[in-house]
Amino acid sequence: MALNFNTMHHKEITSTQNQLIKQIHVLKEKSRERKKTGLFIIEGQRELLLATKANYKIKTVLFYPELVSDEDLNTLISSEIERIQISKDVFEKLAHRSSTEGIIAIAEMKQHRLEDLKFPNNNPLILVAEAPEKPGNIGAILRTADAAHVDAVIIANPKGDLYNPNIVRSSVGCVFTNQIAIGSTEEIITFLNENNINIYSAILQDAVNYHEQDYTQSTAIVVGTEATGLSDAWRLASTQNIKIPMQGEIDSMNVSVAAGILIFEVKRQRDFK
Amino acid sequence: MALNFNTMHHKEITSTQNQLIKQIHVLKEKSRERKKTGLFIIEGQRELLLATKANYKIKTVLFYPELVSDEDLNTLISSEIERIQISKDVFEKLAHRSSTEGIIAIAEMKQHRLEDLKFPNNNPLILVAEAPEKPGNIGAILRTADAAHVDAVIIANPKGDLYNPNIVRSSVGCVFTNQIAIGSTEEIITFLNENNINIYSAILQDAVNYHEQDYTQSTAIVVGTEATGLSDAWRLASTQNIKIPMQGEIDSMNVSVAAGILIFEVKRQRDFK
Repeated sequence: MALNFNTMHHKEITSTQNQLIKQIHVLKEKSRERKKTGLFIIEGQRELLLATKANYKIKTVLFYPELVSDEDLNTLISSEIERIQISKDVFEKLAHRSSTEGIIAIAEMKQHRLEDLKFPNNNPLILVAEAPEKPGNIGAILRTADAAHVDAVIIANPKGDLYNPNIVRSSVGCVFTNQIAIGSTEEIITFLNENNINIYSAILQDAVNYHEQDYTQSTAIVVGTEATGLSDAWRLASTQNIKIPMQGEIDSMNVSVAAGILIFEVKRQRDFK
Repeated sequence: MALNFNTMHHKEITSTQNQLIKQIHVLKEKSRERKKTGLFIIEGQRELLLATKANYKIKTVLFYPELVSDEDLNTLISSEIERIQISKDVFEKLAHRSSTEGIIAIAEMKQHRLEDLKFPNNNPLILVAEAPEKPGNIGAILRTADAAHVDAVIIANPKGDLYNPNIVRSSVGCVFTNQIAIGSTEEIITFLNENNINIYSAILQDAVNYHEQDYTQSTAIVVGTEATGLSDAWRLASTQNIKIPMQGEIDSMNVSVAAGILIFEVKRQRDFK
């Protein structure tokens, strides 16, 4: 029997074969399972704090008492959230290759609907990434978006879900701090048009140099994949195509670097206000 | 016996146990072996072309004839370079998890000495990265450096060697197209001072906002690690510390994104000339 009550009156799991432990593994590894259940896994104290602050609903927190005390937990989560103590064996199995800081939480995904986006004024700055491929790039983009305090990040035609553990990890928590929406390219273009947001697509054709465009009005910066760029719909929907002048031997830049250069040019023109 | 001559008069390796195949594996995996032998591995036709163009000395090219013909090889390498045909088994073993396009080459590393750097004029643009940790970040930095056509990339106190296959791969060949030097922080500061190059260090203390600094004269942009930033020596050596204003909840940006934002602000101020 894997579930016990210990002297601290916490449930305890000591078996790596426990059903909940198995489910956590599946939730980490399978996008399908996350989609089916609406749940995902948060690892780390800092990440849990950020998710809580962003009103994510936390279902269960597993903790390894050697690394996280009951007092630590009290500062991290409210007393209503289920707490389960785990043994060293279980912790080591769950923490494999990740820095959990003794904390693994099961949380509910958000919906990320376009219609839920809220903007503080009528010249928002939005970063749109179409079909970004690598979790590490998505994480880096979310870090840039947080640092620039953009009003929203919108992901078009995503290849996977936002709660891939590699995205959560590489975003160092910025998956929680940004306002994020997900949709098809068509839905997003409709949304931007309906909200009178200028579309500046990173497309070489008929483009002006990015630093010669004025971004002081409402702005969506749109970047595509490294391999194929943006889909045709963006070219047609663009207010103005923009490009980063390429002066090297290889016309190639990491997509998160390109997004960073474009977003911070907008910020510079707006004097970081 | 693994070495034969086939009808095309190429040596052929058909055994995955062949000594050369084993050495290639060790050269890919062990920095120590690369250092000892002065050799490293290039995978891919495009990468081989770029290395050849950059005057890397190619010792041996292994090719898998289903993917690369003799004619292809003639356009890629001179006839003096040893060519060895490999069997499907050997190719599949070597190509594991990488896109070699049927080509694996053994090449000589360069020295990357500071004193060998050449600048076309007296206001060069140099990117210095101190102790960059992740091969993917170094690759992304080298891509940015190529796109911006910086005059040199200098790596201070590297954690490993430049010819780690993950760096070569993530740089998409920009490890060959950039002028790169490696040295200790002290050597690099001395070099920059002797060459009258202004040092702009990404350090928060006593910093001006990066976009308020003039970079039209000789410029070295210096970035540190994501975890600990730059070492103290840079603070003392700085012409001016610079910072990217952080307006999010998490003061955190990917180092290659930060380097891209800084380098392209220099480019913008110089009107991309």
